[in-house]
Amino acid sequence: METLADLGEIELLHRLECYAPPGQFSDDTALVTGGTAGLLVNSDVLVEGTHFSDCTISPYDLGWRAVAVNISDLVCSGADSVIGITVTLVAPPSTPWSWVASVYDGLYEALKACDAELLGGDCSAGGERLLAVTALGNAGPLRLHRGQARPGDILVTAGPHGLSKLGLALLRSETLPYKSAIPIELRYRAIRAHCRPAIKLNVMRSLLTAHPPGLPWRAAGTDSSDGLLEAVRSLCRSSKCQAILNRLDLPRAPGWPADGIWDYWCLEGGEDFEPVLSLPPTWAQAWLRAVPDAVRIGSMQAGPATVLWSTGEEIANVLGYQHFV
Amino acid sequence: METLADLGEIELLHRLECYAPPGQFSDDTALVTGGTAGLLVNSDVLVEGTHFSDCTISPYDLGWRAVAVNISDLVCSGADSVIGITVTLVAPPSTPWSWVASVYDGLYEALKACDAELLGGDCSAGGERLLAVTALGNAGPLRLHRGQARPGDILVTAGPHGLSKLGLALLRSETLPYKSAIPIELRYRAIRAHCRPAIKLNVMRSLLTAHPPGLPWRAAGTDSSDGLLEAVRSLCRSSKCQAILNRLDLPRAPGWPADGIWDYWCLEGGEDFEPVLSLPPTWAQAWLRAVPDAVRIGSMQAGPATVLWSTGEEIANVLGYQHFV
Repeated sequence: METLADLGEIELLHRLECYAPPGQFSDDTALVTGGTAGLLVNSDVLVEGTHFSDCTISPYDLGWRAVAVNISDLVCSGADSVIGITVTLVAPPSTPWSWVASVYDGLYEALKACDAELLGGDCSAGGERLLAVTALGNAGPLRLHRGQARPGDILVTAGPHGLSKLGLALLRSETLPYKSAIPIELRYRAIRAHCRPAIKLNVMRSLLTAHPPGLPWRAAGTDSSDGLLEAVRSLCRSSKCQAILNRLDLPRAPGWPADGIWDYWCLEGGEDFEPVLSLPPTWAQAWLRAVPDAVRIGSMQAGPATVLWSTGEEIANVLGYQHFV
Repeated sequence: METLADLGEIELLHRLECYAPPGQFSDDTALVTGGTAGLLVNSDVLVEGTHFSDCTISPYDLGWRAVAVNISDLVCSGADSVIGITVTLVAPPSTPWSWVASVYDGLYEALKACDAELLGGDCSAGGERLLAVTALGNAGPLRLHRGQARPGDILVTAGPHGLSKLGLALLRSETLPYKSAIPIELRYRAIRAHCRPAIKLNVMRSLLTAHPPGLPWRAAGTDSSDGLLEAVRSLCRSSKCQAILNRLDLPRAPGWPADGIWDYWCLEGGEDFEPVLSLPPTWAQAWLRAVPDAVRIGSMQAGPATVLWSTGEEIANVLGYQHFV
């Protein structure tokens, strides 16, 4: 009997595509067209034991994070404002009210930070805690698809990667390679990146203002929730292009250890929720000037849908992570 | 330490109200106003062990039911068309793919029945199976609030109540009072009502066509997901009116046992997902003529927010059910 563990998440989502209109599952966010123009909708769930644990995240931060995760997908798909969210809370009856109140305090602050509202939701008893959020946003003038990258584009991202994974590892007191070499400022930053990911609404709005006059409104984008490498690979797959990353240009935070394995933490750490964009060169340059933390990580060329180092070698997964396994 | 079991669902939702704009939680469905006019949104979750069990519902019916439950809230709030849903699936990795495929087959059929689409969603591993659905619909010309009932209104509903509870009891082989007196046709109907609740889009559309010219567009409504008595009580609470129900007029299915306890199965069974409406008399009469299964169950009068029998006695809960307990 074939189970979800046999399939893995990518194959599962692929099989579920046939239940939706063609192309509906090809981006993180769905465009709602029936009757209302330009509404983007996205659902994400955080499950205790799978996505969070009381040992590593406070209920306040969990609420913040549930909003940030969802809104990241919205803004990286081209929402230029957020309307609000519905929240489904499942929790065992023994759950303290104070825990729920702190989660909603965190949700509320994150919503306030992007001028959005709690629209409604549902509550139910269940064996484990989870938050299922659906976020609604207004589509802006630039809809970002994964399939819109072209050879000659520059690959850019809005900030360093791997911080969330490092933060989680520190919170779990995991044994880390070269731990003593990690400066204290980087530790704090990493824990904050894990617990309170920033909401990149302004970074994405600056993509609109950085658009060079006369250039077509064509760009590809996704967010790096499943890791930088997987984000770039998904752009390659959907756009049928090949990506080249320069190892020296990996988006490392200041103080990030200079060792091979740490490059892969940067590439595969995941849950960084940063926009990863494929832009025509002039647009990329204008955006890099406008966003202080933004970095050029590589470029797109014609070729099979793979991600290469600039040496020509294909970048393989070293850490690995698959949902449902 | 105060837990969710201490609070119960009503108090929990009351405490969560302060995180949303004023009035946002006063109906089952939220109206989305930011940037888009007239979009209704609703979230409902079905959790294994709490809302369903493999012993009593097939995966296909579960998928159908997840859609029907959500869309019932939408149409009973005044949506005149359904756009689509997002689905968050949580399941243990050992879940067979065939189970997931059947759930989505059922979802798909239910969506087709109301001309709606699967918009997107999320999947995650978790300890227990659940489906968290968010449905989007277009608001029609009549937004139905619970707080819009007035003394002199007629209380009506679109069909018999208690069937879903009877169906579940039969599927569970529970010991039932007067079980042998339940005709076989009623048993089949009850099981179908539990497993494949009808989607009342046309019944609610007929409320628009039955509207007498010249009458204001003022009506109150909710759906009977928490039972007929609780639906009527919620109209009383929000509208600050008193309801009178005539025991002879309870919406019983043909063959429903004529015994006191069965009246309470009808009143408190729950999960019937029928519209319960408080309408001006001429509108109520026109709607009752237009909808074959619709019945007049009582009326509204000035008084404290309670539900009385026509004898003047207050109707108390006999079966009782509280989430989170």
